[in-house]
Amino acid sequence: MLARRERLLGPNTPIFYDNPVHLMRGEGVWVFDADGKRYLDCYNNVPHVGHCHPQVVEAIARQTATLNVHSRYLHENVLDYAEQLTATFDAALSCVVMTCTGSEANDVALRMAATATGNRGVIVTDHNYHGNTTAVMQLATLLPHDLGQPAHMRTFPTPDSYHLQPSEQTLEDMAQRVLAGLDESIESLRQSGHGLAALLVCPIFANEGFPDLPDGFFEQIKKRVRAAGGVIIADEVQSGFGRCGSAMWGHQYANFEPDIVTLGKPMGNGYPVAGVVCREDIMHSFRHNTAYFNTFGANPVACAAASATLRVVQEENLLDNAMQSGQYMQQKLELLSERFPVLGDVRGAGLFLGSEIVESRESRAPDAAHGRALINAMRDEGVLMGLIGRFDNLLKIRPPMPFNREHADQLFETLESVLARM
Amino acid sequence: MLARRERLLGPNTPIFYDNPVHLMRGEGVWVFDADGKRYLDCYNNVPHVGHCHPQVVEAIARQTATLNVHSRYLHENVLDYAEQLTATFDAALSCVVMTCTGSEANDVALRMAATATGNRGVIVTDHNYHGNTTAVMQLATLLPHDLGQPAHMRTFPTPDSYHLQPSEQTLEDMAQRVLAGLDESIESLRQSGHGLAALLVCPIFANEGFPDLPDGFFEQIKKRVRAAGGVIIADEVQSGFGRCGSAMWGHQYANFEPDIVTLGKPMGNGYPVAGVVCREDIMHSFRHNTAYFNTFGANPVACAAASATLRVVQEENLLDNAMQSGQYMQQKLELLSERFPVLGDVRGAGLFLGSEIVESRESRAPDAAHGRALINAMRDEGVLMGLIGRFDNLLKIRPPMPFNREHADQLFETLESVLARM
Repeated sequence: MLARRERLLGPNTPIFYDNPVHLMRGEGVWVFDADGKRYLDCYNNVPHVGHCHPQVVEAIARQTATLNVHSRYLHENVLDYAEQLTATFDAALSCVVMTCTGSEANDVALRMAATATGNRGVIVTDHNYHGNTTAVMQLATLLPHDLGQPAHMRTFPTPDSYHLQPSEQTLEDMAQRVLAGLDESIESLRQSGHGLAALLVCPIFANEGFPDLPDGFFEQIKKRVRAAGGVIIADEVQSGFGRCGSAMWGHQYANFEPDIVTLGKPMGNGYPVAGVVCREDIMHSFRHNTAYFNTFGANPVACAAASATLRVVQEENLLDNAMQSGQYMQQKLELLSERFPVLGDVRGAGLFLGSEIVESRESRAPDAAHGRALINAMRDEGVLMGLIGRFDNLLKIRPPMPFNREHADQLFETLESVLARM
Repeated sequence: MLARRERLLGPNTPIFYDNPVHLMRGEGVWVFDADGKRYLDCYNNVPHVGHCHPQVVEAIARQTATLNVHSRYLHENVLDYAEQLTATFDAALSCVVMTCTGSEANDVALRMAATATGNRGVIVTDHNYHGNTTAVMQLATLLPHDLGQPAHMRTFPTPDSYHLQPSEQTLEDMAQRVLAGLDESIESLRQSGHGLAALLVCPIFANEGFPDLPDGFFEQIKKRVRAAGGVIIADEVQSGFGRCGSAMWGHQYANFEPDIVTLGKPMGNGYPVAGVVCREDIMHSFRHNTAYFNTFGANPVACAAASATLRVVQEENLLDNAMQSGQYMQQKLELLSERFPVLGDVRGAGLFLGSEIVESRESRAPDAAHGRALINAMRDEGVLMGLIGRFDNLLKIRPPMPFNREHADQLFETLESVLARM
């Protein structure tokens, strides 16, 4: 099967685990392979309300059987969904463009920012990935590409609460270094003539390793971006739809208001739907300067899928569950980390948490090889998880949102037994 | 509803007809509005095998209820579909990347071309639109945008068989002028240092107005592109999956072999799925230089939808139908054009045909206003069609593929009565 895959799809297509999993079926927080073996899914955020949630399946099946066309005819689904969606944002974020992927959403958002500000420059972290279109991928520093670093791009240092610099004592010290780096990049863009169009950032720095941040961190970022004439694009592809537990959106959890928000992965529980939410003035300048049309974006099935997903998040109180399960899991993970010094720390929020795999608690030296061995061993024991972060050594626990205490108990029992014998 | 739309989606979102259609349901070649009024769909190519085709609906519903995850696990659907798909191409076009939209497909194809050739330059027609990502949209000359013309882009003259230049007598004369324009652009890219990476072109020049072409036209283009070290990307988003009747792919109909082929709209009968098919050497250089991953691309539901769509195309002999219905419709349209001189000509292939709306047969002067009045009147009479081409005056008849003689009779009876009273 791997040979067939390489012949048809080419070499180097990304795949998980030394012994890849051949999946056949999913249900809630569970997936099943070709031999019927069951895995506890602690990784996937796309099946946000659970694999094959019956209400989302039903909504997709019903609308697919009824009508599926582009949005140059009138249809109520897109309007109903846009209202339901924007109702979860602060009042100023009132307009929506639907796309098919988070990559397309970030691509559009960058264009909106340039049009709205009259500037070209974009600032991202120095360990970022926001999508695969050329305009977005060329900003990526986390994955290899041959696009070069564009002249209008600058970076700022990734906040890293676990690896403070020698001169730093507190998170506030770390924040000041990050902000100084941001100031430098803003100044460099000014001097280059590009100016600042946008800071594009995930409100929880998900790919960067979801560091702890001092209070008011993003307000300080926002002040600088605004002063330079730019806007903030919050990439909520990972942090959105209640993932952090205490709020529907990562920027609400991080306590700041962005100008543009991009959405993706969890939005339709697997159906390819994504979008951009922004202020009215930004939407107007975009729509008056660019004839944007997306054939599959805003189609009635995409909207039905997204609407059903949002309804389940709300009706099943999945934010509460993320909050409570997340807190329970943090406690369990902390207990484990006291026994196994390979677990360097515990961090995260809601149902997005993890621990750095390190050589020792004292050195805090990342041990990515140990991390890889760990997630491969967990896979063999029927638990799916991943690694992320600056050093590829951060255990990523980011399960479907209905993940509960019972599931957590199974995860940590397995993790304990694997750690005990490694 | 329009006010609600503008408030939520912003101004200037594209919409069809002076009196927009509020659609509720689709079935085969028919769609139904909120009042239950039935429309004959002579426009939509996304519901390729017919609106809500039961076999595609069933495939999507079944797979959505079974499993829908990203492609970093193993799943057979993507491999099965890649085999079914590449079997319809010449042997050299053997590798596939799945994306969600035709825009993403063209975005990837341009990157592949740059990596494979070591050049940057791209040539498109002077009346082109190939998609909405920044990298693709900035090449567009057909729709307004504020991205500017990139330094690595050149155009060549759109072939226009109906509006020959004063010096031209034959299609071959027209072709020589187009090829001279291409030579100029290739030379200009060479001098600029960009060199030629790709000529990106629709094999039937769909957006340009599907002109008649002399035999061997694309072979002459290909010779020049190859000599300059570039590759040809055939954008089959509109021309593919049997649309031209006599062949599965537009490039087969146009009798040349491209290096890269991009697919979109009709691929999953409305499910957001698209892709790139290319030679093995091109896929290898791409995959070794760029870490491309698309979360929703190649998901099991997308592949199930695409596989079911391809199966219906083959099992229901929709190429034959496109061929026969298309020929029948050309005859009917020619008979009409003899009676109504506002119909300037008849052209197209398979189920993609049309006629230029002109002020007079002698002047051939485009009459876009008359064209708009015509399609609006047709809409009121229950027939949906569009306009396209260099002067926005070309009737576009591009129905779902099961469109048959009976449907054609209704279309032309309505067209006759509308023309008679205009």
